[in-house]
Amino acid sequence: MARLPLLGEQSWRTPCTPEVEPLDSPVVPDNSTACHCVARRRAQTMSGYTHDLAQQVHAWTPADPERALEVAELAVVDTLASAIAAIGDDTVTTALTAVGTGSAGAATAWATGQGSDVQQAALLNGLTAHALDYDDVDDAMIGHPSTVLLPALLAVAEDRDLSGAAVLDAYGAGLLACRDLAAELGIVGHYAAGWHATGTVGTVAAAAALARLLGLDQLGTQHALGIAGSLACGSRQNFGTMTKPLHAGVAARNAVLAATLAEGGFTADPDQLEGPLGFVSLHHGTGRSVREPAGGPDVTGLNVKLYPCCYYLHSAADAALDLRDQGLSAAQVESVTVTVHPGGLAPLIHSRPTSGLQGKFSMEYAMAAALLDGHLLLSSFTDEQVNRPEAQDLLRKVTKRTDPVPPVGGGASGAYAVVEVTTTTGEVLRRRVDRARGHASRPVDEAGLRAKFDDCVAFAGLDPRRGGVVYESLRHLRAATSVRTAMHDLRELTAAAASTTVDA
Amino acid sequence: MARLPLLGEQSWRTPCTPEVEPLDSPVVPDNSTACHCVARRRAQTMSGYTHDLAQQVHAWTPADPERALEVAELAVVDTLASAIAAIGDDTVTTALTAVGTGSAGAATAWATGQGSDVQQAALLNGLTAHALDYDDVDDAMIGHPSTVLLPALLAVAEDRDLSGAAVLDAYGAGLLACRDLAAELGIVGHYAAGWHATGTVGTVAAAAALARLLGLDQLGTQHALGIAGSLACGSRQNFGTMTKPLHAGVAARNAVLAATLAEGGFTADPDQLEGPLGFVSLHHGTGRSVREPAGGPDVTGLNVKLYPCCYYLHSAADAALDLRDQGLSAAQVESVTVTVHPGGLAPLIHSRPTSGLQGKFSMEYAMAAALLDGHLLLSSFTDEQVNRPEAQDLLRKVTKRTDPVPPVGGGASGAYAVVEVTTTTGEVLRRRVDRARGHASRPVDEAGLRAKFDDCVAFAGLDPRRGGVVYESLRHLRAATSVRTAMHDLRELTAAAASTTVDA
Repeated sequence: MARLPLLGEQSWRTPCTPEVEPLDSPVVPDNSTACHCVARRRAQTMSGYTHDLAQQVHAWTPADPERALEVAELAVVDTLASAIAAIGDDTVTTALTAVGTGSAGAATAWATGQGSDVQQAALLNGLTAHALDYDDVDDAMIGHPSTVLLPALLAVAEDRDLSGAAVLDAYGAGLLACRDLAAELGIVGHYAAGWHATGTVGTVAAAAALARLLGLDQLGTQHALGIAGSLACGSRQNFGTMTKPLHAGVAARNAVLAATLAEGGFTADPDQLEGPLGFVSLHHGTGRSVREPAGGPDVTGLNVKLYPCCYYLHSAADAALDLRDQGLSAAQVESVTVTVHPGGLAPLIHSRPTSGLQGKFSMEYAMAAALLDGHLLLSSFTDEQVNRPEAQDLLRKVTKRTDPVPPVGGGASGAYAVVEVTTTTGEVLRRRVDRARGHASRPVDEAGLRAKFDDCVAFAGLDPRRGGVVYESLRHLRAATSVRTAMHDLRELTAAAASTTVDA
Repeated sequence: MARLPLLGEQSWRTPCTPEVEPLDSPVVPDNSTACHCVARRRAQTMSGYTHDLAQQVHAWTPADPERALEVAELAVVDTLASAIAAIGDDTVTTALTAVGTGSAGAATAWATGQGSDVQQAALLNGLTAHALDYDDVDDAMIGHPSTVLLPALLAVAEDRDLSGAAVLDAYGAGLLACRDLAAELGIVGHYAAGWHATGTVGTVAAAAALARLLGLDQLGTQHALGIAGSLACGSRQNFGTMTKPLHAGVAARNAVLAATLAEGGFTADPDQLEGPLGFVSLHHGTGRSVREPAGGPDVTGLNVKLYPCCYYLHSAADAALDLRDQGLSAAQVESVTVTVHPGGLAPLIHSRPTSGLQGKFSMEYAMAAALLDGHLLLSSFTDEQVNRPEAQDLLRKVTKRTDPVPPVGGGASGAYAVVEVTTTTGEVLRRRVDRARGHASRPVDEAGLRAKFDDCVAFAGLDPRRGGVVYESLRHLRAATSVRTAMHDLRELTAAAASTTVDA
């Protein structure tokens, strides 16, 4: 998407953005009396980033429609799985107790199975799906697209009784909007400044997706994007707290607000995103980094997390599990050396973990659990599992190091891991993984997705039979003439458990 | 409030803020699995800006309690007056039609008189009070404090059946928080970057006010501020559109969300505001500009707008009205010359206005209307009034100019206006005004406040008798053992009119 020079007449903006006056002046620059009608009467601009993004949102047709549907259904299953796993999580129960599910409406609060109003559902569901940080991620966005897009889209679709196919279609446009916005910002600088792209980019991209779902016209879409550009927020200073997943919920809710208002004729600057005081400028945009979004020009894949721990562990976890699958048993292990790319150990600060949470940031525990159990499930990261003697013994045999050059296999790779096990008989086994399973370039297969879903249902203590029904509904969402059908199955699954969890 | 160095242990933050990886890397920096428990377990920090602001919010006791109550009641009356005037405004009716008033709750949606849930009421009421830009302003904040603080405080107070005195007390703490946050940011740089301080500063300050209202403890208040710091938003690119007043509503709603969540135990970084990836840094803070907030260390005043037009017109309007009061009639006017400080004409772009809206940005029309009518009311700025022949004749006799040195009275003043009228008999009358009536340094008196309130009620087509009841309730809010009493009077006033307005 090319950046074209602004050609529109700009003087309408003058009344409201005079120069800043000294603090001791009574002339307060932003208190001119309402002048939105001026903007409303203004002719729609024909170029500029907001215009172009709005146009793309509606013009997009997938090159491979089947693939786009597959990716969207994958995102639906993975996002709901991540939400289900978090039903009993402290973040979710605290939020539900504090703010409730709002009025009884047609949109489902996933964690409780209750009907909720559309904005509150978007808020709670975004929070829930991101609470365990187990939801999908996108490289180009440096963030989590689906935990914003889907809570927004599904809440509105339920509220208006729209089809599964409509949601999946709008999801594709929203995912591409995430990537395009990231490219437009120069996402690395945006992220480095401290913005949480899931919240910031997510807000605008979800508004774009909703504009497609609701069939807004070109100018209405620009207004939706312009409103969303004003509401985009999320500070990485709050990483490591409950507020991180809240960003996803707030982004989803604000996107619903923006799109719903724009649909009703509410106005924003139709060139807001690229304006000198607009979204890109305020959010430390450094200029478009690539002509085409880094994720490619179409919806072809998404990174699904298959282990419920820090993503920096995933390549090494794959390698260790491969060695286990090849017949290595924990009892044979004399020592383990893990080599990763420079920077690849930064978050892995717990060499001697004593809690489930610390285990999620421990290379040593991840290796021990993978080699002992042959899997890394949600239940692998409890305090009890981390503290079992055999794990504590084995993790003490693990050494970790970094090297810009992989010790085996040649060539450099951005996120490689090499796991090298010396057995008690002196044999040395090596396994290198450059991309974790579940990455878009190594997509999760049906069995792997189902296994993750089932693990999430089991972790939440829910009925596996009902879980299976929900899986089938979501996995084939394109077939639902109303998303309410699939959400009805979800309500049956979560309602009973949630009532006991939240009341506890 | 001094900025003290951070002494707290910081390593807990490491897992979630690793360095940014290249875009083509599968290592996405923000997808480590949930680790909020780490922050939760962390000891409360004992210094730093978030800590100090939270402490101040609770420690504040007004030096002059009566004055603080007076200012807070003034803000309540003025904010509700501004909201009442906007009941039929396109911004308000569009928003109400698009998103509704939410579930039936104990908080009043001012524009309709309906009961609404607390967050939706905060959203709608912030939007409504700011829709005409007729609400109070604060020099130190470069923004509108009350249109965020009061929708948040009143909605929560209604929901929980709290007293008027509690709201007024929390309002004072919130107003001081606005000023202190503005000083901490270096508000001029913040504003110049494009942030709408009403939205950004307002979010955090309203969360602070709510923390006092709800009696949160020190750490809970820091969490509330930390959540709010992540949600602060508002782009000046949207000035001149309906999204500008939306910022006030979103700020109020997000503040309610932040405080309610923190009350329930939801966590944020308790040092969020000053953190390297936190509120001040992300919002283009340039460092504390003054040791004491520019508005002074206590609640002593507030700027009330007495004319429903651009604030850049107010000093000149005062001067023209003074000349009218001294006996000058429009028929005597041969010519009018208005001189203002350099920059003081920037937003006044309509020399030959032909609509009510253009009239709000026209020095020529403001002079004509003031000299013709002896007042500037909401009804002065209709298309009909602007286009009446006598106004169109008179405004053509007005010339405007700037001069760094006032032509009369000596000395320079930041926002002076000199109106010089030459009469048909050759007499020259001059009047200089340095601060508009209603500014904190020239506070509005009871009669002036009542006149504004009555004009707002009349403009909305509401019953003046019921309006008088509401005025008395609000003007003496300290006497209300429950704010629901005063809001009940408001509901009686607005409910009937709103139902016809919104359905139209």
